[in-house]
Amino acid sequence: MEQTSQLTQQEKEKYMAEAIAEAKIAESKGEVPIGAVIVYKGEVIARGHNIRETTKDATTHAELLAIQDACKKVDNWRLEECQLFVTLEPCPMCSGAIILGRLSEVYFGAMDPKAGTCGSLMNLLADDRFNHQPYLESGILEAECGELLTHFFKELRARNKKRKADGVE
Amino acid sequence: MEQTSQLTQQEKEKYMAEAIAEAKIAESKGEVPIGAVIVYKGEVIARGHNIRETTKDATTHAELLAIQDACKKVDNWRLEECQLFVTLEPCPMCSGAIILGRLSEVYFGAMDPKAGTCGSLMNLLADDRFNHQPYLESGILEAECGELLTHFFKELRARNKKRKADGVE
Repeated sequence: MEQTSQLTQQEKEKYMAEAIAEAKIAESKGEVPIGAVIVYKGEVIARGHNIRETTKDATTHAELLAIQDACKKVDNWRLEECQLFVTLEPCPMCSGAIILGRLSEVYFGAMDPKAGTCGSLMNLLADDRFNHQPYLESGILEAECGELLTHFFKELRARNKKRKADGVE
Repeated sequence: MEQTSQLTQQEKEKYMAEAIAEAKIAESKGEVPIGAVIVYKGEVIARGHNIRETTKDATTHAELLAIQDACKKVDNWRLEECQLFVTLEPCPMCSGAIILGRLSEVYFGAMDPKAGTCGSLMNLLADDRFNHQPYLESGILEAECGELLTHFFKELRARNKKRKADGVE
């Protein structure tokens, strides 16, 4: 695993802000607000946001879509010089896709204590039994990334409560 | 986790033979021969085979493609009554997609001691910290599934050796 980041704190926050912008697009579609971008040589080359309810496809997480987009852009399944920024700690599927795509650096915002596998439940990205371990850093714009989710689920609960009270459900 | 399979041994082998047929399609394209099918109410509704070199997309594993196909077919990200058959033990990405898609049963052929996460390096599908645990069974037509891979890599090594001897590389 690389022990140091190739980026300044200012750069990390700039790119995470782009991932947050993606999360906000998800929110505007009524989707859980999670966003991701992939950076290659200082440029955002791929983007993704969670669209599971829209696509009705369990695999359409922000990171997976961004990785698929990046593979197209660099015309290679190896994303060895790429940096992933994602607002929430990746799940097993997305952690696995990061390993398969051999991304060099991964930065995330908020922890996911329920399904996160980059430090919460386990750390797949640091497991040297797999053939790739990226540099990993958490907590970039953590409060803002987490607040997006907290706000979304609070609103959702309020809507569901109102629906029940109105006798819709 | 469900403790018993919903299928007879004959049915399991019939569906695994369909996954093997998918693996052979991958092989015919020069791809590592891994195949998968998804069964819903006794019918194969989705198929996938590894096409990573063709697509240049790190995420195009047999299981992930089959899961995406199945979500389209049932028009739902929840594949709760679906059974996955795959020739090789799933990796972290595909194990994660199985959990996210909530597939009810998973059957695989050969173990993958290098990257398998359904019993080899760990067992993500049996980890009750995630919100879904499918029924899991390994060893279905194991020899045939494994032989496909052994043969493929033997041929690949022979070709590479010949290329070196010919001075192509």
